[in-house]
Amino acid sequence: MIVAMQELATEDQIDLVIEAMVDAGVGVHRTTGATQTILAGVGPTSSVDLTKFEVLPGVLHVHRISSPYKLAGRGFRPEGTVVEFANGVSIGGARVVVMAGPCAIENEVQIVETAKRVKAAGGSFLRGGAFKPRSSPYAFQGLGIPGLQLMFDAARANGLLVVSEVMEISQIEAMLPLVDCFQVGARNMQNFNLLRELGQVRKPVLLKRGIAATIEELLLSSEYIMSGGNYDVILCERGIRTYETATRNTMDISAIPVVKKLSHLPIVADPSHGTGHREMVAPMARAAVAAGADAILVEVHPNADKAASDAAQTLYLDQFDKLMSELRVIAAAVGRTF
Amino acid sequence: MIVAMQELATEDQIDLVIEAMVDAGVGVHRTTGATQTILAGVGPTSSVDLTKFEVLPGVLHVHRISSPYKLAGRGFRPEGTVVEFANGVSIGGARVVVMAGPCAIENEVQIVETAKRVKAAGGSFLRGGAFKPRSSPYAFQGLGIPGLQLMFDAARANGLLVVSEVMEISQIEAMLPLVDCFQVGARNMQNFNLLRELGQVRKPVLLKRGIAATIEELLLSSEYIMSGGNYDVILCERGIRTYETATRNTMDISAIPVVKKLSHLPIVADPSHGTGHREMVAPMARAAVAAGADAILVEVHPNADKAASDAAQTLYLDQFDKLMSELRVIAAAVGRTF
Amino acid sequence: MIVAMQELATEDQIDLVIEAMVDAGVGVHRTTGATQTILAGVGPTSSVDLTKFEVLPGVLHVHRISSPYKLAGRGFRPEGTVVEFANGVSIGGARVVVMAGPCAIENEVQIVETAKRVKAAGGSFLRGGAFKPRSSPYAFQGLGIPGLQLMFDAARANGLLVVSEVMEISQIEAMLPLVDCFQVGARNMQNFNLLRELGQVRKPVLLKRGIAATIEELLLSSEYIMSGGNYDVILCERGIRTYETATRNTMDISAIPVVKKLSHLPIVADPSHGTGHREMVAPMARAAVAAGADAILVEVHPNADKAASDAAQTLYLDQFDKLMSELRVIAAAVGRTF
Amino acid sequence: MIVAMQELATEDQIDLVIEAMVDAGVGVHRTTGATQTILAGVGPTSSVDLTKFEVLPGVLHVHRISSPYKLAGRGFRPEGTVVEFANGVSIGGARVVVMAGPCAIENEVQIVETAKRVKAAGGSFLRGGAFKPRSSPYAFQGLGIPGLQLMFDAARANGLLVVSEVMEISQIEAMLPLVDCFQVGARNMQNFNLLRELGQVRKPVLLKRGIAATIEELLLSSEYIMSGGNYDVILCERGIRTYETATRNTMDISAIPVVKKLSHLPIVADPSHGTGHREMVAPMARAAVAAGADAILVEVHPNADKAASDAAQTLYLDQFDKLMSELRVIAAAVGRTF
Repeated sequence: MIVAMQELATEDQIDLVIEAMVDAGVGVHRTTGATQTILAGVGPTSSVDLTKFEVLPGVLHVHRISSPYKLAGRGFRPEGTVVEFANGVSIGGARVVVMAGPCAIENEVQIVETAKRVKAAGGSFLRGGAFKPRSSPYAFQGLGIPGLQLMFDAARANGLLVVSEVMEISQIEAMLPLVDCFQVGARNMQNFNLLRELGQVRKPVLLKRGIAATIEELLLSSEYIMSGGNYDVILCERGIRTYETATRNTMDISAIPVVKKLSHLPIVADPSHGTGHREMVAPMARAAVAAGADAILVEVHPNADKAASDAAQTLYLDQFDKLMSELRVIAAAVGRTF
Repeated sequence: MIVAMQELATEDQIDLVIEAMVDAGVGVHRTTGATQTILAGVGPTSSVDLTKFEVLPGVLHVHRISSPYKLAGRGFRPEGTVVEFANGVSIGGARVVVMAGPCAIENEVQIVETAKRVKAAGGSFLRGGAFKPRSSPYAFQGLGIPGLQLMFDAARANGLLVVSEVMEISQIEAMLPLVDCFQVGARNMQNFNLLRELGQVRKPVLLKRGIAATIEELLLSSEYIMSGGNYDVILCERGIRTYETATRNTMDISAIPVVKKLSHLPIVADPSHGTGHREMVAPMARAAVAAGADAILVEVHPNADKAASDAAQTLYLDQFDKLMSELRVIAAAVGRTF
Repeated sequence: MIVAMQELATEDQIDLVIEAMVDAGVGVHRTTGATQTILAGVGPTSSVDLTKFEVLPGVLHVHRISSPYKLAGRGFRPEGTVVEFANGVSIGGARVVVMAGPCAIENEVQIVETAKRVKAAGGSFLRGGAFKPRSSPYAFQGLGIPGLQLMFDAARANGLLVVSEVMEISQIEAMLPLVDCFQVGARNMQNFNLLRELGQVRKPVLLKRGIAATIEELLLSSEYIMSGGNYDVILCERGIRTYETATRNTMDISAIPVVKKLSHLPIVADPSHGTGHREMVAPMARAAVAAGADAILVEVHPNADKAASDAAQTLYLDQFDKLMSELRVIAAAVGRTF
Repeated sequence: MIVAMQELATEDQIDLVIEAMVDAGVGVHRTTGATQTILAGVGPTSSVDLTKFEVLPGVLHVHRISSPYKLAGRGFRPEGTVVEFANGVSIGGARVVVMAGPCAIENEVQIVETAKRVKAAGGSFLRGGAFKPRSSPYAFQGLGIPGLQLMFDAARANGLLVVSEVMEISQIEAMLPLVDCFQVGARNMQNFNLLRELGQVRKPVLLKRGIAATIEELLLSSEYIMSGGNYDVILCERGIRTYETATRNTMDISAIPVVKKLSHLPIVADPSHGTGHREMVAPMARAAVAAGADAILVEVHPNADKAASDAAQTLYLDQFDKLMSELRVIAAAVGRTF
């Protein structure tokens, strides 16, 4: 950490800051310039609350030099993490993986038909929500574990893996045998108790970026899971909230190369939530693969117009087939398999 | 709801939209203009997912006409809600109430000294976190229930009420005898399972606006609590995330008159989280009361520089005393008692 | 336009609104529902200020039904606009075009070397600023017309076209013989006097999206130019301002398919300003082409580290060569030539 | 400036950075820590482009230590600037000043009636636009200089000062005898040529914050004017663009104490543009004065519903009278005169 003192800071003020830094467990190097004194803090500063130094008398600015995360940083595994699944599928390697399915599991017919088509088109994961977080208490809230069982059966019958959202610590145990990957939704990205609990599980976790989370905060949240010993974390960009209303969210495609630079974790793109509009899903999925995404998470439904939730952003099965063939070409163009 | 068709929409497209509206349980009034057809949907539309109509062929725009919330709307209680507490204190009435205390409960000396000073200066509530949501897993996480017991004792010894944050459904039962008001933090504003559970509790809930939540989403979240039968909800503006970095968040003072217009629920302002800087707390607290806030929630600490968390935004006790006398004058200027 | 009245609106209030609508020149269709009255306004509403109806007594919401722009809308030219340049180059057709060059023209050696390399790698336009808008009055402000002459000569010697930013009406005349395309920077997207003047010019205009502009506002600004008779407008996405600080701006790739849907105008992507980091330029350029961009605008410099401005986001010439070969493959993958 | 090197940075990389710093004219102090090297740059760094160091090999972060502005910084005039006007009115002193009038000057009757009422209620300035920047080319664009003459006459007849927006360098000369204060609108906050020209004028300039401008950028823009020798700059907070749609903009009241801390310049609040809704204007004006604003700029119109522009946010004259009496009390409560 660096503390820059104001030009008119007194020696007493400087001494107080040095004392506070030492109290916080960091060593101090002092540079006395002609006009300004600079204090460099050396040592374990990742758990130090820097803002407390900002308000000390005579302080101009405080800057963090080292990353606040450790396990999630690129330096921890420079070669990159590849998350392996039971049937040989892996995320973070050469192959771009596709996860597809309805927003919510509605009934057996729906999920079985979807599973067949996802498999036929080359998808690896069946997705679908059993527990649905909805802004309105009057909206459809999901089928729960019985729904998840329907999806698990449909997936296994078609050689697919299962990814589904967990909303509550109490759901983990019942979900465990029915999912290959837990999904943490955007609204729970900073539900730290849930993250900590998922750190104890030995199944991969797909962690979605919060709607107003910085990439640094996303990495810090992944650190909660990893610090429990579960290193199989897959990050997911799904759009952030901005002033623009033409799309439901603004999909931050640049998060993909930024994550690749800062972290070793794989990153998935969700163009369905990222845009909220069916017709924007394909161009944004192509863009994500072109920018280096390791996987695509997309909503499809055999009867998209009548989907119980997220209908507007859900692909028809024909659109999904077409998207898959487009992604195949783009993946090849950036040196990936599909 | 209103569906505006595109100028070139065909009769078949219009029929399909009408059919979809009827399927969703709404009656349809059709206006055929010279260039454009407009379909007005009448009936119970608050649980209808409007976005699904937006992507039907031939549709230009879909607008919601009625509010998506019912119990939280001004019309439900035009006279406004006044939340009453045990010792005669109420929020939402003529008197502007002050809630103050440390970010986190640290030890007995700290919380007892704070309680005395908060009481002496005219505060009504002691605040303090027993469970702390922290972005980094390496930061201080709170003392838990034993800490809450310390705060409860200190509050009662000084005639103060207690407000403290609940992070998890599993904490509710143990917290129940030790708090007068549950606080739901910004990160949990859309933790719908938690909100639903708090709807079953018979103690008031202070619900903080999420860091990127719209006011409409805040009201929808309050609806989750109210739909369980707990109508004692107090809203809280605590700053939203914007591009500006001079303050930790951008405190949206205009949320106060907007909430007063749209809803009957009381609203509290938290200038500590709203700004993140100790020296900005007093001007923003004054501004909030001038704009009509029903209460102020503020962080104070007997040794603010060494607070275990949020030190930068925590007032010294002397600053708190000064702020209280300023608020007294502003409250009078807007026709409130203090 | 649609005016939805409040449930308790009186007949007098409804009459007043109808009168105000008629005053504004729009015809009114009234739908009287069981609980709510809706007034549909028909006629030329694109110049009507809707917000004035929002504050009339008894009004709940006002919605615009038709687009506020006319000439920029997709319906005006459903087949799409192709902007043609002197030497057979066109933007908006099958071929993806590349515009490259330094942020600022610095001297003859720099611009000549850049021109050669841009041409050799397959670029069509040489870009470079002669007038530089800088946030600080103490930063380099550009060489002016003599610099533009250097760039024009270097471009022509290498068979390239010239695009350069105009900041002021007074610069148009001198720039006219030296550019093939005027660029309007993000800061001037709503400099309406400048836009109006460029509507009188008979050279194409590349209009950058403002740093906080909605896509609708971008289209409205293009309307200023087109309403003067100059229909050769090329839009440009160059990143918007959000809370994320990992990149200089957040490049809104979804603006590309949104513009393609709403408008007939071609759209260019500028990944240099969109990200602000050299290493993010290539992935975001690939993403933009994959999403359907008609051209790429990118900063390159023979000595990128020492560029007088925007050094951090400027490609080395070798990086540019590599990017060009990547874009060639992506363009083919989406069915475009390059 | 501070350059923090990566942990694994080589001596060659460090040498290259030192060389680049020296090239940029700054002296270098080196701190070699156990794990990390830190380079502190000393000297005139306010015109140095720091981002160019960020992309040098081996660099982790670069931080600016000193402010990028000089003349606008608090240190330049610690006692604060008071801008004096002809008739004894001043902005930045003990008295809170009110500037009021219509969005646009429409005709003589309108402006004369407004002037009388503004004066009677205690206002000091008559405001009104002669040149109107409108997002749509089809909206009312203002009366120009003849309109300004009408306003000047009405103001002088009532002992009021005149403030009006300048949009173009070419308008300055004709406006000069007819205004006491030039206003630069939000859209022109970074129209640097215009700012530079206003630096040559010897009349005060009211500079509005851009819709997505940081406070630092606002201060840098004021520096453009001051560096020309015109130190009479008055800043204005008028709302910033966020994701919230309940208000037209989000009025950043905290900008008031932030500006007071960072700069010596006076600051005005514009709650009309800040909220866009007539009923929000009074609470936000009170909030601004409570937070320390030096003046209030507000839109009023004798026939607010029929105002040619901004009708929704324009006060009726009766509302204005009421607001004035409220502000009088709030001003007294914060120790100001009115």
